[in-house]
Amino acid sequence: MTKPSVKQVNITRVQFNSFKESPDILAVEEPLEIRLAYNSNGELEEKNISVTMRTPGHDLELVMGFLFTEGIINSETDVVNIHHCETVEKEEEHGNVVKVTLRKDLDFDIINLERHFYTSSSCGVCGKSSIESVSQKCEIVPEGNVSISFDTITNLAKQLENNQTVFNHTGGIHATGLFNKQGELEMMREDVGRHNAMDKIAGASLLKNQVPLSENIMLVSGRTSFELVQKAIMLGVPILCSVGAPSSLAYELAKENNLTLIGFLKEDKFNVYCGGFRIKNS
Amino acid sequence: MTKPSVKQVNITRVQFNSFKESPDILAVEEPLEIRLAYNSNGELEEKNISVTMRTPGHDLELVMGFLFTEGIINSETDVVNIHHCETVEKEEEHGNVVKVTLRKDLDFDIINLERHFYTSSSCGVCGKSSIESVSQKCEIVPEGNVSISFDTITNLAKQLENNQTVFNHTGGIHATGLFNKQGELEMMREDVGRHNAMDKIAGASLLKNQVPLSENIMLVSGRTSFELVQKAIMLGVPILCSVGAPSSLAYELAKENNLTLIGFLKEDKFNVYCGGFRIKNS
Repeated sequence: MTKPSVKQVNITRVQFNSFKESPDILAVEEPLEIRLAYNSNGELEEKNISVTMRTPGHDLELVMGFLFTEGIINSETDVVNIHHCETVEKEEEHGNVVKVTLRKDLDFDIINLERHFYTSSSCGVCGKSSIESVSQKCEIVPEGNVSISFDTITNLAKQLENNQTVFNHTGGIHATGLFNKQGELEMMREDVGRHNAMDKIAGASLLKNQVPLSENIMLVSGRTSFELVQKAIMLGVPILCSVGAPSSLAYELAKENNLTLIGFLKEDKFNVYCGGFRIKNS
Repeated sequence: MTKPSVKQVNITRVQFNSFKESPDILAVEEPLEIRLAYNSNGELEEKNISVTMRTPGHDLELVMGFLFTEGIINSETDVVNIHHCETVEKEEEHGNVVKVTLRKDLDFDIINLERHFYTSSSCGVCGKSSIESVSQKCEIVPEGNVSISFDTITNLAKQLENNQTVFNHTGGIHATGLFNKQGELEMMREDVGRHNAMDKIAGASLLKNQVPLSENIMLVSGRTSFELVQKAIMLGVPILCSVGAPSSLAYELAKENNLTLIGFLKEDKFNVYCGGFRIKNS
């Protein structure tokens, strides 16, 4: 069962002293719970590991992507079954609970996982520790042999914009686009949560056996946080672009991991924060 | 010790075939850990309850606001001590750990708290349960006797913009503004996390003994999520405005709680999603 990703409501549009009732379309935001079934000393245990507010659609991809970019699974073969739960308590919960069964012989430690969600880093609470923590988990290093031209980069944003269906209706949603190295849009996902839009891309790529995304470019519609750079690095993406600004820690993490980080992408210009060697000067 | 909220880096500005090296300013993003000391059956226990990525500055306000808008404390008197931890493991962690000691006789259940962070709602995983969960926690209902004019509303955004210091440098940060009912800016806080900017306002208001904010207007710089409406409701704010769009669940939660929700606020117009009775038609 797929829930709708937009919802119609009646609003009042106000301009000077004109109050006009009219219908409007909002991006849907609903909780999604992930239930993990895993082997613990020979017993099958089940635990709710996360609830995220998301826009319905591509839920299974979102969950697969989340598990991968958070380092809980290492490949799609770690998951033997994934489906929307039918046995929920209330009618309204249908479609909002996804159950994932991990393969029996997966080395999985729920205590470590709980610690992971509690503290972003097990080795300290500072930018440096956060960066070390991601680097430890990540086995893929972005490759150096992808290079793109000025024109390819400046064409990305227009393509993403043209394909944003929910955004066009609501104006209130984030998007992540996955492009090939020629700069052609391969996949686009939208969500009220910026991290969810990227996780949907991650999950879809994983299910298609396309990870690492070492010859791809990613574009996010908003700003670039530490979390988004973390996810891009876990996926092996060499070039991450955004329409907005990166944070200091996003920049430091990208630099440490040899990622090309582009921000303030416009039709005729952009900023390169690090990894400029992947941009062709011609 | 206050950490800086901006950081200078060297970037490359690219426009057509001109590559120009130049300095740039980024908004700082760093983890902040909250350590809670509380009474458990006569023993003083201590637990790390949360790590959030935030922009340094107003950390104690952020923590106080977080504890209040998440329903962990009910007033500033529930906290007997709050300070930056001096006993951290590494030099870099200084300023990133805040310890909060709750009053001894506070009825506080760490198990419930852990459940709260794990699942956004204890009674189900759907929009309706999420709304019920907030309504249960919230003792304040926005009052009906504040009303504002078209001109007051359309003047809010300009004031917020003019006061955003970090944004002016970096272009990469969220802001929340607190206005009085005449539409004058009383307080502005910025953060890479939109929820943190609002929690900083919450904490500052709490420390000044000004909660409930039943005669105030709030303006957020981005979109309105469920979480932001939740925090506004916990604070008793009657009018919440944003420059962007609300999500479906933000709208439903606002409607259920009698909040006036305004979106797409521009210089000459805006949308009213609910609670239009607080807007003067003159």
